[in-house]
Amino acid sequence: MRTVIWDDDRQLVKMIDQRILPAEFKLNEYKDHRRLSQAIRDMVVRGAPAIGAAAGYGMALAGFESRAGTLPHLRADLDAAADELYASRPTAVNLAWALTRIKKLAARFEGGPDELRAAVLEEAQRIADEDVEINRRMAAHGAALIEDGDTVIHHCNTGALATVDYGTALGVIRMAHEQGKRVHVLVDETRPRLQGARLTAWELENLGISYEIITDNAAGFFLKTGQAHRCFVGSDRTAANGDVGNKIGTYMLALAAHDNAVPFYAVVPTSTVDLDLASGDEIPIEERDPQEVLDLQQAGSWVTPDAARAGGRARNPAFDVTPARLVTGIVTENGIAYPPFVENLKQLVRRTD
Amino acid sequence: MRTVIWDDDRQLVKMIDQRILPAEFKLNEYKDHRRLSQAIRDMVVRGAPAIGAAAGYGMALAGFESRAGTLPHLRADLDAAADELYASRPTAVNLAWALTRIKKLAARFEGGPDELRAAVLEEAQRIADEDVEINRRMAAHGAALIEDGDTVIHHCNTGALATVDYGTALGVIRMAHEQGKRVHVLVDETRPRLQGARLTAWELENLGISYEIITDNAAGFFLKTGQAHRCFVGSDRTAANGDVGNKIGTYMLALAAHDNAVPFYAVVPTSTVDLDLASGDEIPIEERDPQEVLDLQQAGSWVTPDAARAGGRARNPAFDVTPARLVTGIVTENGIAYPPFVENLKQLVRRTD
Repeated sequence: MRTVIWDDDRQLVKMIDQRILPAEFKLNEYKDHRRLSQAIRDMVVRGAPAIGAAAGYGMALAGFESRAGTLPHLRADLDAAADELYASRPTAVNLAWALTRIKKLAARFEGGPDELRAAVLEEAQRIADEDVEINRRMAAHGAALIEDGDTVIHHCNTGALATVDYGTALGVIRMAHEQGKRVHVLVDETRPRLQGARLTAWELENLGISYEIITDNAAGFFLKTGQAHRCFVGSDRTAANGDVGNKIGTYMLALAAHDNAVPFYAVVPTSTVDLDLASGDEIPIEERDPQEVLDLQQAGSWVTPDAARAGGRARNPAFDVTPARLVTGIVTENGIAYPPFVENLKQLVRRTD
Repeated sequence: MRTVIWDDDRQLVKMIDQRILPAEFKLNEYKDHRRLSQAIRDMVVRGAPAIGAAAGYGMALAGFESRAGTLPHLRADLDAAADELYASRPTAVNLAWALTRIKKLAARFEGGPDELRAAVLEEAQRIADEDVEINRRMAAHGAALIEDGDTVIHHCNTGALATVDYGTALGVIRMAHEQGKRVHVLVDETRPRLQGARLTAWELENLGISYEIITDNAAGFFLKTGQAHRCFVGSDRTAANGDVGNKIGTYMLALAAHDNAVPFYAVVPTSTVDLDLASGDEIPIEERDPQEVLDLQQAGSWVTPDAARAGGRARNPAFDVTPARLVTGIVTENGIAYPPFVENLKQLVRRTD
């Protein structure tokens, strides 16, 4: 099942509510682009590729909502909807990319308004389908890196839930499993939002892939004692030199892998490689609400002191940058780049252009 | 206030119940050695030095409980109590050490039974007092390593709560603060039992020392961006070559410090240096109940999938070993050892013998 689904009979969008997983599995329905936009803002859907697809379908909804009888009027309504959708998560690269793609289609469209409505929906479907296709191509390249019997460490959630379907780093593990390789996953719980413990564990449970959850700080123990054979992570933004911007904790995992000569791979669609960034030093790091660190309960009572929560006494950087020197290879839909990344990564990205 | 207190008027032991901190502060009272023994087992008190002191007072209770009218009878009652106390946490080095110390005293004692009862209590008091004294000496050596304006990273809880009073690594930070140095602490929350978020944050709050809680996986970000200037940790067992056995996550923190040339110090009473261990490879690593990793709630609902909890799908190593090559210095009550540890650590330990 896809994370973001178009219901053709009822002309509405369904999305898995990721805020309440794994305690509850619920498909939310969105009949107009304003409510969909709010859902993106509220993180019902997360993961850059999934957000991009949701925004595409939001444009399709806006087309059907519009009562415009002429092409210029419909275009104006679509542009207004794009502005609203864009504002829901302005930092998500794939959101802007999907909206631009549909606005360009509308701008050059020749035909009647109903034909444009259908064309926007088709384009939204194409965006979603392409994401799944790219993930499968990355998975095919990456699965060759996994050997039968491997134990791999995975950070955050990079599965079907972070994309339209199949996933990036978790897609690699999934394909190795589907190829019949025995693979065991040590799931970094991924504090503070616990995407590993919540979402990756849930996906692996459903896929029937062997896994165990570990605290992020235990990865070093398993790497040092020879119990983990490779690491796979995603990336939110990768620089031209191969520096990998990703979920907080990725850097420390990469250090531990490197210290024990365990291969460390980033699985990255070429759309998230930013050749304009010379190095990861230029990637801005978002610091989020300290309450995400502080709001934790065990056995029904608060873990942190009341004064700490009241005073917001925590720091919460959401991402870090893993230097290219710690990265064994970068898996893209066009193949795997190895060092020197500054040359080899560019070649794979240009193959897409 | 001490973690373990002898109430002389009422002839009983009071201990801070560390299982319910910081939500609730409660002093439990123990009038007989059996209930005290059970409290050690239940982890009302934790931290090797604090457990040692509790056991000493347990022996004092056993002496007063005993109705023996002769010295041999009282010795027999004390030996039986020692066996029961030892079984409560058989792996805690300081527990065995404190019990042996009191049994030796009883064996060579000459005088009446009531005099022995008083002597056992005196020895228990001495064990507790010595722990505080050793911690203050370590703190004095270590505080010289902290510069005015430093931000330091601290792992787990090594404060007054882990000892009788003052603490080891946290004692160093406390003394620097008392000397008037401005010091800010980034508190590793220390999954899975969250001793940092629970206990270290609570102690720093009470001491009025500036702090912020961070997820363990974020330490690398602060070290890499120049926002942290040194790291201080404790140790449960340090090998002759300077390999440091400590709470899970210490190794990954040390890697991140080393990668950024930030000094990394272990604060270690000589009683926990084991010169019989050539290296940390020989330190056995306890794996604890997977539910400690899995039992986590946010906003009142379970984080991990039901199937993960039901199946115990987690790994939970409690400790790891940090290789000596990542350790800048080892602070003891007799001074600070620097590499080569295999020579310099031995000299400091022998100074105690």
